[in-house]
Amino acid sequence: MAVYTEVSDEELEAFVAGYDIGTVSSFKGIAEGVENSNYLLRTSRGQYILTLYEKRVNPDDLPFFLGLMEHLAERGLGCPLPVHDRAGGALGTLAGRPAAIVTFLDGMSARRPTARHCGLLGEALARLHLAGADFGIRRPNALSMPSWRPLWERSRARADEVAPGLGADIETELDYLEARWPKDLPAGVIHADLFPDNVFFLGDRLSGLIDFYFACDDFLAYDVAICLNSWCFEQDLSFNLSKGQALLDGYTRVRPLSEGELALLPMLARGSALRFLLTRLYDWLNVPPGALVKPKDPLEYHRKLRFHRSVPDATGYVFALGGRAFEVSP
Amino acid sequence: MAVYTEVSDEELEAFVAGYDIGTVSSFKGIAEGVENSNYLLRTSRGQYILTLYEKRVNPDDLPFFLGLMEHLAERGLGCPLPVHDRAGGALGTLAGRPAAIVTFLDGMSARRPTARHCGLLGEALARLHLAGADFGIRRPNALSMPSWRPLWERSRARADEVAPGLGADIETELDYLEARWPKDLPAGVIHADLFPDNVFFLGDRLSGLIDFYFACDDFLAYDVAICLNSWCFEQDLSFNLSKGQALLDGYTRVRPLSEGELALLPMLARGSALRFLLTRLYDWLNVPPGALVKPKDPLEYHRKLRFHRSVPDATGYVFALGGRAFEVSP
Repeated sequence: MAVYTEVSDEELEAFVAGYDIGTVSSFKGIAEGVENSNYLLRTSRGQYILTLYEKRVNPDDLPFFLGLMEHLAERGLGCPLPVHDRAGGALGTLAGRPAAIVTFLDGMSARRPTARHCGLLGEALARLHLAGADFGIRRPNALSMPSWRPLWERSRARADEVAPGLGADIETELDYLEARWPKDLPAGVIHADLFPDNVFFLGDRLSGLIDFYFACDDFLAYDVAICLNSWCFEQDLSFNLSKGQALLDGYTRVRPLSEGELALLPMLARGSALRFLLTRLYDWLNVPPGALVKPKDPLEYHRKLRFHRSVPDATGYVFALGGRAFEVSP
Repeated sequence: MAVYTEVSDEELEAFVAGYDIGTVSSFKGIAEGVENSNYLLRTSRGQYILTLYEKRVNPDDLPFFLGLMEHLAERGLGCPLPVHDRAGGALGTLAGRPAAIVTFLDGMSARRPTARHCGLLGEALARLHLAGADFGIRRPNALSMPSWRPLWERSRARADEVAPGLGADIETELDYLEARWPKDLPAGVIHADLFPDNVFFLGDRLSGLIDFYFACDDFLAYDVAICLNSWCFEQDLSFNLSKGQALLDGYTRVRPLSEGELALLPMLARGSALRFLLTRLYDWLNVPPGALVKPKDPLEYHRKLRFHRSVPDATGYVFALGGRAFEVSP
């Protein structure tokens, strides 16, 4: 939950007057997103989300994020559509911060995702990958494999405060992944943070995806691996094979995975688990004084990482062990 | 900002099905209120606020709060109207907590109230007092004068940790107020927490009042004193006489104050400042570990209390010192 920047009435009115969306009738901070300040903005014309981009977002990346949402929405993917101001731009300044208004997306995130949710998520993720193929802006993944060691160096000295032996285990994993990380899998625009919080459902269907502020270019199957980590484990951190199968079934119905992607899925899942372990570990060890946001438990991702080490290939993520139940590209 | 209780999709759907308000299309935690969990609920029929009552609210008081909102709304006061469920009740249970759905109120609180806002607030407060006169349920003020000493006893030993000499000053003030606290001023339903956060404006008008969860029976002028404290001081804690005058002007246009109320206004303002000083002091000294809400500074109300000691009577709160600019009842 997060509302970091306060906006005065005068500033808000002046900002909204720059758009052709009517006059403000309500403006409420919402408990959504941890990186930015999000407000529900109601006007005489409709309902919108107004986002103030806080310090963790690089303003230079905003044209990529906003352009991507627009690109995907135009191709029929459910996602917030940035509203252009009267001068034609999608990015403004409010209360000293970069700010944007996007359309309001109906739907709710699944607090306890089921296999059915995982199937819909898999389909939507594949549609995102296909729709992103002709997006014109590039953004390298700032949190891809080469970033992990420098990130690790910043937590290394204190890692064993979190759990004895954690440091040595991360070292070993880093050595392993650096030596074997793939170089030539199919790549393109990925969401890179498609946790259940960022996917909305409405009745029987998936209504849309939000929070594109980690989106970047990377291996498409790495995005699948991030979702296996964030959608298919139970609260006790056991892996749910039905959910894994549903996710891969859904994905491969829209975009079949290659033999190479399937073989490397456990490695990508280990890498993705390590990425979230490292960022959470850093946040855990560096909670600012007076922080209003509770850091997330890094050890959750250490447990997930250990699970993926036991998986030989993608069949390890499906119910029908050994017999493949999902589409493989020829 | 506050969302304390997580609600599962199934629980929410089952709860909403008990009302004739359509099906859920969106459900977002909002950063409003510090005592309860508030959600913005959108359905196929409209927009509502769903509140889960957390531990600080006594469930036995909920019929008073919800009944009062309904009573006031029926008399034309802008405030959320509790929605009745199919069985006719306004109070249900969700995620193990008492819960209610109220209508959504357009408008925004004034982040920096002006004298104009104070005038509208004064009028609305007086209208609330008049509209509440025939409300049938009684609720003694749990935070009135007799409660202050027991509350003080719980912080006394550590008060000087917050500011040297604070303890002795509070002792003196308590003795003074206990000896002189009035017994026979006009009384009735008061809001008791009408801070700027709880008052919405829309363009030129005041659109409504929210958060009736401290409402109770007490001296009507005590509610005026609470508003003088919460609306008429600047950020540097100097008292703004134009705002004081606007508030009293607005109030007395609707409900003139008696000579007795006017004479005792500084005492009521001291009492109200002490009440907020004491609750904030307790919260400040007792922040639970892992708390997501920052405690408010108790010393703000100590400064305000000291200002009121210098005020001889209600004319001290108005611009036209000496010459009274507001209505006095005959």
